[in-house]
Amino acid sequence: MIAVLKNGVTEVQKNNLIAWLKNQGVGVHLSEGEYQTVIGLIGDTSRIDIDLLSGLDIIEHVTRISEPFKCANRRFHPQDTVVEIGSGENKVLIGGGHFAVIAGPCSVESEEQIVGIARAVKATGATLLRGGAFKPRTSPYDFQGLRGEGLELLRKAREATGLPIVTEIMSASHLDMFEDVDLIQVGARNMQNFELLKELGRSKHPILLKRGLASTLKELLMSAEYIMSGGNENVILCERGIRSYDTYTRNVLDLSAIPMLKELSHLPVIVDPSHATGKARLVEPMSMAATAAGADGLIIEVHNDPEHALCDGAQSITPAQFDTVYGKVRSIREIIGKQTR
Amino acid sequence: MIAVLKNGVTEVQKNNLIAWLKNQGVGVHLSEGEYQTVIGLIGDTSRIDIDLLSGLDIIEHVTRISEPFKCANRRFHPQDTVVEIGSGENKVLIGGGHFAVIAGPCSVESEEQIVGIARAVKATGATLLRGGAFKPRTSPYDFQGLRGEGLELLRKAREATGLPIVTEIMSASHLDMFEDVDLIQVGARNMQNFELLKELGRSKHPILLKRGLASTLKELLMSAEYIMSGGNENVILCERGIRSYDTYTRNVLDLSAIPMLKELSHLPVIVDPSHATGKARLVEPMSMAATAAGADGLIIEVHNDPEHALCDGAQSITPAQFDTVYGKVRSIREIIGKQTR
Amino acid sequence: MIAVLKNGVTEVQKNNLIAWLKNQGVGVHLSEGEYQTVIGLIGDTSRIDIDLLSGLDIIEHVTRISEPFKCANRRFHPQDTVVEIGSGENKVLIGGGHFAVIAGPCSVESEEQIVGIARAVKATGATLLRGGAFKPRTSPYDFQGLRGEGLELLRKAREATGLPIVTEIMSASHLDMFEDVDLIQVGARNMQNFELLKELGRSKHPILLKRGLASTLKELLMSAEYIMSGGNENVILCERGIRSYDTYTRNVLDLSAIPMLKELSHLPVIVDPSHATGKARLVEPMSMAATAAGADGLIIEVHNDPEHALCDGAQSITPAQFDTVYGKVRSIREIIGKQTR
Amino acid sequence: MIAVLKNGVTEVQKNNLIAWLKNQGVGVHLSEGEYQTVIGLIGDTSRIDIDLLSGLDIIEHVTRISEPFKCANRRFHPQDTVVEIGSGENKVLIGGGHFAVIAGPCSVESEEQIVGIARAVKATGATLLRGGAFKPRTSPYDFQGLRGEGLELLRKAREATGLPIVTEIMSASHLDMFEDVDLIQVGARNMQNFELLKELGRSKHPILLKRGLASTLKELLMSAEYIMSGGNENVILCERGIRSYDTYTRNVLDLSAIPMLKELSHLPVIVDPSHATGKARLVEPMSMAATAAGADGLIIEVHNDPEHALCDGAQSITPAQFDTVYGKVRSIREIIGKQTR
Repeated sequence: MIAVLKNGVTEVQKNNLIAWLKNQGVGVHLSEGEYQTVIGLIGDTSRIDIDLLSGLDIIEHVTRISEPFKCANRRFHPQDTVVEIGSGENKVLIGGGHFAVIAGPCSVESEEQIVGIARAVKATGATLLRGGAFKPRTSPYDFQGLRGEGLELLRKAREATGLPIVTEIMSASHLDMFEDVDLIQVGARNMQNFELLKELGRSKHPILLKRGLASTLKELLMSAEYIMSGGNENVILCERGIRSYDTYTRNVLDLSAIPMLKELSHLPVIVDPSHATGKARLVEPMSMAATAAGADGLIIEVHNDPEHALCDGAQSITPAQFDTVYGKVRSIREIIGKQTR
Repeated sequence: MIAVLKNGVTEVQKNNLIAWLKNQGVGVHLSEGEYQTVIGLIGDTSRIDIDLLSGLDIIEHVTRISEPFKCANRRFHPQDTVVEIGSGENKVLIGGGHFAVIAGPCSVESEEQIVGIARAVKATGATLLRGGAFKPRTSPYDFQGLRGEGLELLRKAREATGLPIVTEIMSASHLDMFEDVDLIQVGARNMQNFELLKELGRSKHPILLKRGLASTLKELLMSAEYIMSGGNENVILCERGIRSYDTYTRNVLDLSAIPMLKELSHLPVIVDPSHATGKARLVEPMSMAATAAGADGLIIEVHNDPEHALCDGAQSITPAQFDTVYGKVRSIREIIGKQTR
Repeated sequence: MIAVLKNGVTEVQKNNLIAWLKNQGVGVHLSEGEYQTVIGLIGDTSRIDIDLLSGLDIIEHVTRISEPFKCANRRFHPQDTVVEIGSGENKVLIGGGHFAVIAGPCSVESEEQIVGIARAVKATGATLLRGGAFKPRTSPYDFQGLRGEGLELLRKAREATGLPIVTEIMSASHLDMFEDVDLIQVGARNMQNFELLKELGRSKHPILLKRGLASTLKELLMSAEYIMSGGNENVILCERGIRSYDTYTRNVLDLSAIPMLKELSHLPVIVDPSHATGKARLVEPMSMAATAAGADGLIIEVHNDPEHALCDGAQSITPAQFDTVYGKVRSIREIIGKQTR
Repeated sequence: MIAVLKNGVTEVQKNNLIAWLKNQGVGVHLSEGEYQTVIGLIGDTSRIDIDLLSGLDIIEHVTRISEPFKCANRRFHPQDTVVEIGSGENKVLIGGGHFAVIAGPCSVESEEQIVGIARAVKATGATLLRGGAFKPRTSPYDFQGLRGEGLELLRKAREATGLPIVTEIMSASHLDMFEDVDLIQVGARNMQNFELLKELGRSKHPILLKRGLASTLKELLMSAEYIMSGGNENVILCERGIRSYDTYTRNVLDLSAIPMLKELSHLPVIVDPSHATGKARLVEPMSMAATAAGADGLIIEVHNDPEHALCDGAQSITPAQFDTVYGKVRSIREIIGKQTR
C-alpha cells in the first residue's frame, strides 16, 4: 500500500502517522521527494482500512498494491477450484475445465411448469435446474414468488429428473428452508448483504454469488471472501451485467470480467446472459460469446407454458431455442479445447 | 404505458397480446402507423410488470408514462410529509420546512467517545445523534462495529443529552435490538434488501432510507414504496452520492436529486456529504451546497478522539469544524427563506 | 413521439403547444386521462428537437418511439450493407457475411517497423493494415504520432504488401493528406466532432466510426447518420469499450452492442479488443468472444520491434501471438456458419 | 509513479525494464517483497506514457502518484488565476474572488432576440453575453445554428450593450471568424479534440473549457494543459454535468468538482446548471448550490421570445426568472464571504 502525503505536513504529524501505522502491524518505508513524500506499507496490509487512511487530513492519496482478498486470491491458491454440486450420479462439477449449464424458469409457477421444463432442459443437456422461489422485485406490487411452496416444487422437479436445484436466497432467516438446496444463489442486490454472506460462510452449501448491479471485480471478490473466510470455500462467481448509461440492453454484459476474474482468483466464473441483456433474442449470441471468452458455465432462463404462450418470450427462451443455443455453445467449447461435461 | 410492436407481428399475435393486457385490468388504445404499431395502456398500470412486457418477442420497446409508485408519489399526496422523531421536548421534525442536522461518529467506539461527541454536537445545534453499531464493510477483515454493545452506548449518549439516536440496521433479524432506536437507517447496500424493507414496513419506526450505490431515483422511491405500502409512512430519503467513473471523490454527490425527489415525492430529503465525498475537507462546501439546493437536513460525520488525534481527519470533521460548518449552513437556510429548527 | 403534459397545464397552453407542433409538420393525437394528458406525435418526427420539447415548462416527459436515424436504420434498409475497401485483387469486403481482420501497430514508428509488421500480419491472414500517424493522447506531453510522415510510411507498407491501409483522422483540415487512405478512422474522442463528420459525408471514403468513450448506441448511429446524410454510405461501426466505474480493464467491452447494432442498423460492426481492455493478454479471449457474438471483423494491435523488445507487450500482441489468435477466431467463424474471407 | 511487477518476472526482464525506464530520464527505486516487486519512479514522470507502461506483459499494475499536469497544477502555481475578458469599462474578471455570471440564449436566432436578451440580462447584472452561433447537435436533422451570421448578431448585441461575448467554436478552421470573440467556448464534445486545443493554445483568447460528457477531472485538466502548454494561460474550467445511468435529469451535476478542481488547479471554475439538468425549473436550486460550493461564476441560458412564447421554457429561464435567480445567487455569494463583481 502506498500513501502520498499532502504538502505542508509537519514532522510531528508524519511521525505520528508512521507510529500509528507500525502499531497496525505493517512495515513502513519512507521516500521523501522535492514535491511530495510517499510512504510505502509493507507486509500484510489486508487489515489496513483504506477508507480510514485516505480520509486523513494529511493524506493526499492512497493506493493498494496487493489485493485485499486472500482466500479468493489466485496468488495464494494457484490451482483452479472445482465446485461439486449435488451427489451420486447427478453430481455436477464446475471449474477447472468442467463446464456446466444451469437452466430453468425465472419463477417457479406450478408443478407442471417446473417439472416440464426440468425434463426439457435435461433432455437438451443442462445439468442443473434453476427456478426462483423468492423473487427480488424493484416494485412491491410485482410478483414476489411462491416462496416456500416454490422450494417444494423445485424438490419435486429434482425427484422427477435428478437435476440438482439452484435457487436464490433473500434473507439469512430463510436458511432452514434452503437446507437441501444444492446450489444457493445470492442475487446481485444482496451481493453486499454482509449479514447474509456471513451466515452462508458458516454453511457448507455451494454458493452462486452474482456480481452487484454496479460492483467492481474487487468488491465481488471481497464478498466471496466474506463467505470463504467463514470456512465455506464452495463459491462460484457469476457475471450478470453491470449498470451503464445506455438503455438498449438492461445492463452491459462485461465479458472481459471472465478472464480478469480467472486471473485474480481461482474460483469458477459463470455468466447469466438472460438477466444481463433482458432480451431473449440476445441470449444466443451472448451465450456463445461468454463461452468463447472462457466461462466455466452459463445460467440461462428457459420458459415453457403452452397455455400462456404469450409469455414465452419474456426474457426467456423456449426449450427448443435452448436446444439450439446449447448446440452452438457445445461447438464453441470444443474449439477452446476443453470438454463439456 | 406505451408499447411499440416490432415489425412483422401477425394479427393473431397482436390480438393475443391485447387480450392478455386487458386481462391484467388495463385499458388498451391501439395506434397503427405505416412503419409501426403502438399500444397505449390506460388506467392503473402500476401492477403491469414492465420487464415481462418488454421481454416479449413481439415487443420492440416499452415506456412507462406514469410513475409506478403510489404511496410516495406527490401526484396523489401534494402536501409535504413531516416526519416526527423522538418524543417530548427532544422531538425533532424533518420535512415541510423543518430542517435538521444529524451528527456523530462513523462508528460507536466507547462510552466516552459517543457521549463526548453527543454533547459537542448538541452544543453546536445538532438535533439528532448518529453512530454506527453495525457496520457494513467491503472487507470481512475491516472493523464490523460493536453491534449490540454499540446500541447500548448510543442509548447512554441519548440519556446524557436527550438527542434522539440514528443508527443502521443490517438484518431484519436484529429488529428486536432496534426497538427503541429513534430513526432506523437503511444503508445504501441494503436499499434493495427487500425482505428487510418489508419488515420495516410493518413497524412504526421512522426510517432513513439511503440511496443505493448506483440506484436511480425511481428505484429509491420504489424502495420507499416497499416500506410505505406495508403501512409505515415515516420515511426520509437520503442522497449520499452515486458511483461514477471518476476517482477523485469516492462518489458523485447528486444534488439535483434534491429538487427532483421533492418534485416526484412528498417525502423529506436529506444529504450525507461525508460518505458521498469521502474527504473531510469537502464536507463544508457540500453541506452548504446541499442546503442551498433545498435539502431538508444533513447527516454529517463528526469525530473526536483526543488520544488518537491522528484519526480525527478520517472522512469526519471535528466538533470545532462542525461548529463552523453549521454556522454557514444556518446562514444559507436563512436565505432560502425557511426556518432552521 | 409521446409527450406527457404536467398537471395544471391550461387549455390555452395546451392549444398553443398543439398548434406549434402541427406547424412543425407532425400529426397530433391527444389522450386525456384523469391524472395526465398525453400527446402522441405522428408522422416524421425525426426533425422534432426532443431537447427543446422536453425542456418546455408544461412538459413532464418526452419519449421517442421511432428512432431518429433514417439512412442508418435497418427498418428502411433491411439488407446488410457490404463496404468495399481498396481495389483490384486486394479489395476487401466487410459486412453481409464478409469478415475481415485489421491488424497493425498502435503508432507508425519507422519504415522497417511498419513494413515488417504488414508482412507478418498478411502472412497470418489479416487483410487490412492499421497504424496511427496522428495520435489522440490525453496528455500533450505524450507522443503525438509521426503525422504526415507516418502516412507516407503506411503507403510504403501498402506498396510492399498490397494491404489496404486504415488510419485515424483528427481534423477536417487534414483531409487532403488522407486522399488515398483506404479506410479513414474516426476515433472515439471525435465521434461527436460534427464538423469533421460533415466533411467526411462529402467524401466517398469508407469510414471506420468508433463509438465514443461514453456514447449510447443511438448517438453512435446518429453520428453515422451525419456522414450518411451527406451522401457517404460507406460506414463501418466499431465497438471499442465504454467507460465504467471499474478499473481492472481500461474500458468495458460491450459485446451485446454487436447484435443490438445489427438489429437497429444495416451497417457492418467490428470490434477493437486491444483498446477496450488495454491488456494484451485479454485480446485473445475478447477476439474470440466478439467473433462468437457475430462481429463482422476485428481491429487488433500487433507490434514487433526486436530492438525494443520491452515494448512488445504494450497493449499489443506480437505477430506470433496474432497468428494464434487468428487461428482461434477462424475456428469460431466456421462454427457460426459464415465464411472468413 | 509506482509499477508493480507480475509474479514470475525474470531477472533479465526486470533489468531490461529498469534500463529502459532510466533511459526515459526518471530515477528508479526497487522494492522486492516476498510476493511482489514494486518499482518506484522518481523525478519528472509526466512524460512517461502510463498506458504503454501498464500494458507491458511483465507489469501487473501502474499508479501515478503525482499529477501529470504542470501548467494547470496548483502545486506549482499556488495563486488563483484571474482571467480577464474584454477590455475597458466592460472588462470582466473571473477567478481569485471575482465572480461573474454569463447569460444568454442557447442559440442566436435574430438581432431582435439577441439584443433584447442582452439588454435584459445586463439590467439584471450579468456581465457577459452567451449565445450559440455554431451548435453541436446529436442529430444532423436538428438546427445547426446561424454560424457566421450568428457571430455577426452577437457583435451587434455587444455594440448595443457593451457586454463581452461568449460563444462556442467547433473547428479550428473557424478560428478567423472568432478573432474578436471575447471568450471562446470549447464544448463538452470537443474537450478532447486535441487539434482544436493546440490551435487555441497558440492564440491569446480566453478559453472556456467545458468538461466532457464522461471526462474525469484529470482529463479536463490535461485538456487545459494542451491549451496552456501552447502558451495560452487564460483558461476557465466549466462543470456542466456528467453522464450517469439515471434519466430524470439529462446529466448529473458534479458540484464536488468545484472544490476538487480548485484544490488541484489554480484555474477558475464555473458551472452550467442549464445544460447539466436539462430542466429550467432546476436552474435556480442548482445555481444556488453551485455558488454555495464555491464556483467562480455561472453560465445560464436565458431566453425571451414573445412571439413564440411557447418555447420560453425550453431548458432556459426567462429574463424575469433570471432576475430572481441572480438575486438569490448574490445573497449566497455574500455569505460565503466574497464580493460579487
